[in-house]
Amino acid sequence: MIEPIYTSQDPGYDARVRESFGRQGAMTLLGATIEALAPGHCTIELPFRDELAQQHGYFHAGVTSAVADSAGGYAALTLFPASAEVLTVEFKINLIAPAHGERLVADAHVVRSGRTLTICTVDVSCARGGELIPCALMQQTLIRIDGK
Amino acid sequence: MIEPIYTSQDPGYDARVRESFGRQGAMTLLGATIEALAPGHCTIELPFRDELAQQHGYFHAGVTSAVADSAGGYAALTLFPASAEVLTVEFKINLIAPAHGERLVADAHVVRSGRTLTICTVDVSCARGGELIPCALMQQTLIRIDGK
Amino acid sequence: MIEPIYTSQDPGYDARVRESFGRQGAMTLLGATIEALAPGHCTIELPFRDELAQQHGYFHAGVTSAVADSAGGYAALTLFPASAEVLTVEFKINLIAPAHGERLVADAHVVRSGRTLTICTVDVSCARGGELIPCALMQQTLIRIDGK
Amino acid sequence: MIEPIYTSQDPGYDARVRESFGRQGAMTLLGATIEALAPGHCTIELPFRDELAQQHGYFHAGVTSAVADSAGGYAALTLFPASAEVLTVEFKINLIAPAHGERLVADAHVVRSGRTLTICTVDVSCARGGELIPCALMQQTLIRIDGK
Repeated sequence: MIEPIYTSQDPGYDARVRESFGRQGAMTLLGATIEALAPGHCTIELPFRDELAQQHGYFHAGVTSAVADSAGGYAALTLFPASAEVLTVEFKINLIAPAHGERLVADAHVVRSGRTLTICTVDVSCARGGELIPCALMQQTLIRIDGK
Repeated sequence: MIEPIYTSQDPGYDARVRESFGRQGAMTLLGATIEALAPGHCTIELPFRDELAQQHGYFHAGVTSAVADSAGGYAALTLFPASAEVLTVEFKINLIAPAHGERLVADAHVVRSGRTLTICTVDVSCARGGELIPCALMQQTLIRIDGK
Repeated sequence: MIEPIYTSQDPGYDARVRESFGRQGAMTLLGATIEALAPGHCTIELPFRDELAQQHGYFHAGVTSAVADSAGGYAALTLFPASAEVLTVEFKINLIAPAHGERLVADAHVVRSGRTLTICTVDVSCARGGELIPCALMQQTLIRIDGK
Repeated sequence: MIEPIYTSQDPGYDARVRESFGRQGAMTLLGATIEALAPGHCTIELPFRDELAQQHGYFHAGVTSAVADSAGGYAALTLFPASAEVLTVEFKINLIAPAHGERLVADAHVVRSGRTLTICTVDVSCARGGELIPCALMQQTLIRIDGK
């Protein structure tokens, strides 16, 4: 699929997205940070620690999903007007390899930006010894909620 | 779908599942606990606190997913022989209502128990003022990994 | 999940749904028929023939999906006002057993009926020698399109 | 995600895949054909006719899914040894735009080729007036069945 190139409706999207991210207790609890942001795109990273693991010492699938879900949500939000909010409708994630590494990198792209619904794909990799190993793949549907 | 009734291959499944759950740093970090366990069934609960929230003060979709994913994984694990492990292949979750409440309750059932793959559905509700409000629905595929 | 009980906004929903179904060339091509219809519920059946098979002689996963998708769509449509249409946003289907039998039965229920989005689950079974064997499970998101 | 480059374990994969496709009654009924085949890749096309439509005259979501599912299945099969078969475990598809056009083009790629499970993504487009318009996106899990 040829990747669409987007322009944001809101010149202040960068500050707006980062402010919303800062209000997500869950991202702070995990220790995740936004590493890249552009219209229709968001990358979130998360350093490993034992508290993020499942029973084999890898990133928990739920942690991987949480980070991927946020990356997709903020990729969508970059394209909304300043007054609109985003909610996840649903997502599907394949855990394609053990999420074993020093850092999780969730790279989200908008593939379809509609009036009501936005569709994202999120590629999640593990940084391990200088390499980025793909570990999960998400396909996600989000809805725009227009505020006052 | 008429719910299948299962018997476990391992009489010690209860202790084995709880021991595995105890090794999940991520579940401890969130504060989740196993509230019910039976062959092919697992209920996990998680009390709300601000650190688990998204930007509107509800449970973060990723937190909801993490708890639902663990409930499904342990529902599957109850049916495995003692030497086998479980990994999530993939899941799909619909966030059907804002996850707004005092407590998240993820109720997982095995719907298909095959030699290699297990399929679960997970109903997630929010306890709010004495009521249980459905807030998410997961369909999940897991794989059995046979150990030494 | 306790199944919600619905009332339709449109007393003529039965005729309206069947008329829409009749316009689906794809359902006619397959040979599918509506066997049950109630507010928030639709059952579609499809007798087997070789033209519906995959390479092993079972119902093709795509045929199973097509019938399940239609059942979900029409379960949703029963709850809409007469002027509204339904479109599938997305679905996820697990093929839990070979779809091997004389007849496919797709049983769809609305699990969440929102202003914009409707969520359905669809249980698909195969009628084989007098028994109904579960063969697929779908979780589906639909959108209401308001007409003129 | 950087696309992996594959080599087939079976030099005769092309004939083997086309022979299996020829045995799919459902693909013949729809009128679909394999347009491209390479290790880890398969493109299937389907010309429009009224019998493939839903109630608005577009390709039925189930037809779109059937074609995408077959494309993914055969992309996976190219990488298997000659004695192995493929079954769809599950898939998730987003219908991102009305499937309105002269021809459906489903382009499948293997993104993860494991011993037991294969993960594919399938981009589906509609050929309309000389352009290819993206209309659906599938993420799919397949299992290898080793024969005698």
